[in-house]
Amino acid sequence: MKALVLKEDKTLIIRDEPKPTAGPNECVVALKASALNHREIWLGKGLYPGMRLPCILGADGAGVVTEIGSEVSADWKGKEVIIYPAYDWGNDEQAPTRQFRVLGMPDPGTIAEYIKVPVSNILEKPKYLNWEEAAAAPLASLTSWRAMVKMGGLKKGHKVLITGIGGGVAQAGLGIALAMGADVFVSSSSPDKIAVAVESGAIAGVNYKDVDWHLQLKELSGGIDIVLDSSPVDTLDRYFKFMNYGGRIVTYGSTGSPKTTISISKFFLRHIQFIGSTMGSPKDFKDVIAFMEEHSIRPKIHKVFPFTQAIDALDALATGKQTGKIVIGHVD
Amino acid sequence: MKALVLKEDKTLIIRDEPKPTAGPNECVVALKASALNHREIWLGKGLYPGMRLPCILGADGAGVVTEIGSEVSADWKGKEVIIYPAYDWGNDEQAPTRQFRVLGMPDPGTIAEYIKVPVSNILEKPKYLNWEEAAAAPLASLTSWRAMVKMGGLKKGHKVLITGIGGGVAQAGLGIALAMGADVFVSSSSPDKIAVAVESGAIAGVNYKDVDWHLQLKELSGGIDIVLDSSPVDTLDRYFKFMNYGGRIVTYGSTGSPKTTISISKFFLRHIQFIGSTMGSPKDFKDVIAFMEEHSIRPKIHKVFPFTQAIDALDALATGKQTGKIVIGHVD
Repeated sequence: MKALVLKEDKTLIIRDEPKPTAGPNECVVALKASALNHREIWLGKGLYPGMRLPCILGADGAGVVTEIGSEVSADWKGKEVIIYPAYDWGNDEQAPTRQFRVLGMPDPGTIAEYIKVPVSNILEKPKYLNWEEAAAAPLASLTSWRAMVKMGGLKKGHKVLITGIGGGVAQAGLGIALAMGADVFVSSSSPDKIAVAVESGAIAGVNYKDVDWHLQLKELSGGIDIVLDSSPVDTLDRYFKFMNYGGRIVTYGSTGSPKTTISISKFFLRHIQFIGSTMGSPKDFKDVIAFMEEHSIRPKIHKVFPFTQAIDALDALATGKQTGKIVIGHVD
Repeated sequence: MKALVLKEDKTLIIRDEPKPTAGPNECVVALKASALNHREIWLGKGLYPGMRLPCILGADGAGVVTEIGSEVSADWKGKEVIIYPAYDWGNDEQAPTRQFRVLGMPDPGTIAEYIKVPVSNILEKPKYLNWEEAAAAPLASLTSWRAMVKMGGLKKGHKVLITGIGGGVAQAGLGIALAMGADVFVSSSSPDKIAVAVESGAIAGVNYKDVDWHLQLKELSGGIDIVLDSSPVDTLDRYFKFMNYGGRIVTYGSTGSPKTTISISKFFLRHIQFIGSTMGSPKDFKDVIAFMEEHSIRPKIHKVFPFTQAIDALDALATGKQTGKIVIGHVD
């Protein structure tokens, strides 16, 4: 089968790989589409501990079950499914096990003709989503749901700031927060991305390259309850200017600064919470897909590349110019 | 009536002050004992914003209702009560209003013969506590309960680190955590304080002046779920050596360092939460007093000073040598 492989020398190639077969409690999914995440770029730079290459890349995917192993209900055969993008979360909703890992290094990923996964990793594809949308949903929606809703406690009427609004998780968060009835504010370095978010229903946005962006945000919002943050800045103290007492800042990324500094007395006198979160549990995945289906939320797609251009697609992701997900079509 | 007053020049004096009278929804409590907190020392140094002096000091107290205002049930007259040590938390369990303030600046405090408070600020004194214990309970127990149990989510079987074990909040936390069936570890710069905590039921303690205290703690505990922290160190990264995934670090003080730095990627990959908390809501107060009564938890008292020596009592607190609360007896 065709697959996008990151080789030992960290170069990319589309090449033939052995087609997987289903063992006990497993199934093989013929992928109809897959989607990219920044993870694939970081893998290409060797930025993860315990790199094991070569490996088929890709965490996001959707397709049709073509083969089932023993112990798997025959009902799954031929089903259209989306894939929970990780293994070994474990039984604790509070945090994953140390064995937790995302698909696509060290385990084979979704940018391929087929993938083999445990049947516990698949969910029926919501019918209202087409293949490209279904492939774009898992990782970003899961990450954003757990961070903003489960850990951040987002509810109707809350005021939420979503930073770096161009990103996949941020876009997923925008859809979820709007459907929930929250007042959404966004940040970006791109006035165009802010304008698109406001067109979608966000109240306003600020350019984080403005030195007084935090004061602008206070003025615009009156005070923020929850931050869905891809990139905490070098000091969280800046956030205290616009955070309401009891506010939650949930971070799932560190593209802004590798470290952040907090003035402790301001922090505890305001009852602020700073919460780290990444990905989510299988329960979070079921919950977010059910919520998206209930509210007909469609993942925002920037562009669909044919499978043969998967390497170009990764280059496009690296430019950071997109709003929404970059999707790769199925192998023709 | 006699009262301990912080004068405009920030010197202390025991002098006569007008006895308060009860307005609508208020009652007057004849104090049988009061207790000190570091707050009174910081007030003496002018470290709070919006200082309004002179003021009667003291946040903790217990006594007998001697007078009730209109709209107050006659049942309260003559009741033995403890006092919720703050005003205007508001209706949000997540955080207080901006009007929230602790007793004893700007409002008159508990180190006096009488205090006037809204009837919503009093609870019946648990019968198993004597007056000194009852006076020692409110602020420390409330702070520790909210931080460790409500925000930190402490449950039976959790492993908890309580830092600076000599302090009042830490001591209250020790009693609560042991009663809950948690495995308790402590830290201090004093081997004697650690030894006393271990005698009370803590599993082990580390001296935070040892450069490898965090590694010792990992070795002793195998991993910590919750930290009740009076003094986060200059970098939380040190904590990551012993925190379990999904762990919560709840801070209610900043005596260790005014700022702390966090490596964001380690933080979110481990699903760590850093939570600021101070004091607690009236509901938290009811909950902690009920829990203490159910488990017969007695506040640890370091020493009881007679009222005439209230200023010496504050000097004793400032030395930092005590384990547990410093209590002031009633006006003879």
